[in-house]
Amino acid sequence: MELLKETLEQIKERDHEAERAAIEKIDKLAKPIGSLGTLEKIASKIAGITGKTSNSIARRNIIVMCADNGVVEEGVSSAPKHITAILTENLTRNSTGVTALSEFAGADITVVDIGVDAVFDNPLIIDRKMGMGTSNIVNGPAMDYEKAVAAIEAGIEIVDELSARGYDIFGTGEMGIGNTTTSAAVLSVLSGLPVDLTAGKGAGLTDEQFCNKKKVIERAIAMNSPDSADPVDVLAKVGGFDIAGMCGCFLGAAKNRKPIVIDGFISSAAALCAVRINENVRDYLIPSHLSDEPGAVYMMKEIGLEPMLNLHMRLGEGSGCPLAFQIIDSALYTMDRMPSFSEASINDETLVDIR
Amino acid sequence: MELLKETLEQIKERDHEAERAAIEKIDKLAKPIGSLGTLEKIASKIAGITGKTSNSIARRNIIVMCADNGVVEEGVSSAPKHITAILTENLTRNSTGVTALSEFAGADITVVDIGVDAVFDNPLIIDRKMGMGTSNIVNGPAMDYEKAVAAIEAGIEIVDELSARGYDIFGTGEMGIGNTTTSAAVLSVLSGLPVDLTAGKGAGLTDEQFCNKKKVIERAIAMNSPDSADPVDVLAKVGGFDIAGMCGCFLGAAKNRKPIVIDGFISSAAALCAVRINENVRDYLIPSHLSDEPGAVYMMKEIGLEPMLNLHMRLGEGSGCPLAFQIIDSALYTMDRMPSFSEASINDETLVDIR
Repeated sequence: MELLKETLEQIKERDHEAERAAIEKIDKLAKPIGSLGTLEKIASKIAGITGKTSNSIARRNIIVMCADNGVVEEGVSSAPKHITAILTENLTRNSTGVTALSEFAGADITVVDIGVDAVFDNPLIIDRKMGMGTSNIVNGPAMDYEKAVAAIEAGIEIVDELSARGYDIFGTGEMGIGNTTTSAAVLSVLSGLPVDLTAGKGAGLTDEQFCNKKKVIERAIAMNSPDSADPVDVLAKVGGFDIAGMCGCFLGAAKNRKPIVIDGFISSAAALCAVRINENVRDYLIPSHLSDEPGAVYMMKEIGLEPMLNLHMRLGEGSGCPLAFQIIDSALYTMDRMPSFSEASINDETLVDIR
Repeated sequence: MELLKETLEQIKERDHEAERAAIEKIDKLAKPIGSLGTLEKIASKIAGITGKTSNSIARRNIIVMCADNGVVEEGVSSAPKHITAILTENLTRNSTGVTALSEFAGADITVVDIGVDAVFDNPLIIDRKMGMGTSNIVNGPAMDYEKAVAAIEAGIEIVDELSARGYDIFGTGEMGIGNTTTSAAVLSVLSGLPVDLTAGKGAGLTDEQFCNKKKVIERAIAMNSPDSADPVDVLAKVGGFDIAGMCGCFLGAAKNRKPIVIDGFISSAAALCAVRINENVRDYLIPSHLSDEPGAVYMMKEIGLEPMLNLHMRLGEGSGCPLAFQIIDSALYTMDRMPSFSEASINDETLVDIR
């Protein structure tokens, strides 16, 4: 509890002066003001995060929180539970979607076992196990309140450590069969939206299974009565270790004044919790893509940010982050390299000579 | 006229067999089917374009068509006409938005003077000048029909030549003060949509100037009565040399079986013309971003494609293409490197041992 408390005290807004300085510089570049849209906003936002006008995201790391969800026994997922453990291993073997995309984008991956129902003998998997999966939220809370705090703190610690090792930017991802169910539950509680709007078919449910999934989420919320004013209570009662761990990553990035990228539906459920715990966290978040999961659009509205990619992806794993890194990198490079109007006006005189 | 005719005869649909083979391969990868969304579709589309299951876009070129528009004398643009010539020069000096973005993305740029109202003494500007800017469309056609054909053929020839030099993918861009006006006119004629929906404030008009711009477009359409069934007539009467040249690039890419990326509003006006000239051209188009120009959304609907980036950009120059190249490259890399389910299942056995 101490680390979470300290972290929340240390999270400040972005540096508005640095951000204004960056905007001033960008507005002098040889282009109509604002014409590079989100690219300009990303560059000035990161200036506000780091306090520097010129920034680099050369060192990038995607933290993938892996955990099992007890609610899978209600038949809410098309994949069996043991797939979580298999894919957690695969994340360390460069053989998943996010690993291929990250290799291309030059991003490292940190694989965290925050509660997979399997014992790993793999030095590449960081052991922060909070349990052998959560409890089934239909019967009671996923975990107790203290465990939710511990999972959040594990996320904070990992970002603290990676920040100390010099990473410039983070991405968030997850691996956990059943976690679109817990994410939809978290969204419904925090937004007040009905499960009909927040739940989707995940990796591929039939219509019948989808109806069951929605009923399961409604039952879980009714059974646990999470306190929508306390995101930690919501995480503990209807969330999961993975969402709580990622929530900690967002808090940790804000504390360390590092930009952090949101992946898809589950990652954004964690981002929403983090923003509800501390409004200033939004200042450090960069959304990537709009997940094809139907609740994603409501999630982004609740967070108050707009994704830059529309790729109908629904893989998870943090797979949107390496794509976003490339856009962010392009933005920073371009704002640094474009000439200002005054520099470009030299060409004006040259041209008059030619004419 | 001969080159255009030959080109249209040579444009065929994508290779559906190669595309199906790519989809089959992608569907065997270790992920829920379709979960990488547009990334999967890009990879299979390019397989259909080239006829190969595995593809590279290592060599990439953005063709920027530069031209002046006579309609600028009606006060439809916030920038003076001579900016076209200045920025055309700047494109060859690595000092614009698209040059910085392209440098980052490893893309070459081909700068074409297809009708700038200036005489250049610059070996880096390819001279395909169709005139010293178009005529003012309020008083009559922008150019005659033969000139529109010649501008289209110039675009075809440039893509022919660059294809012969080994480029794998193309992007399209433009530089031409006043060309959101001509693009809105082209869209209104080809879609039947009122100018209120197709026109926008471009680089930054006042409300009053915006009202004038819309009236100018309406007058130009009324004066010229372009034949909406003949895109070449539409280009000649209310288009521009830049749009016609880019239209030729799209036709040329389809003929050469190369993917070609659409940039923003003006580039997509050219793409719409190309698709209306030959439906099969759509098979070779990859949209990049949704321009912030309000007509862009209708343009993409008319073309029948969905942009993958939402960055509120409205710079033009082809600036969306280098960003799209990075997504496309990520997609091709990932579909080539991800293991199949059967390859990944080795891990399953390993894991059973661990457990």
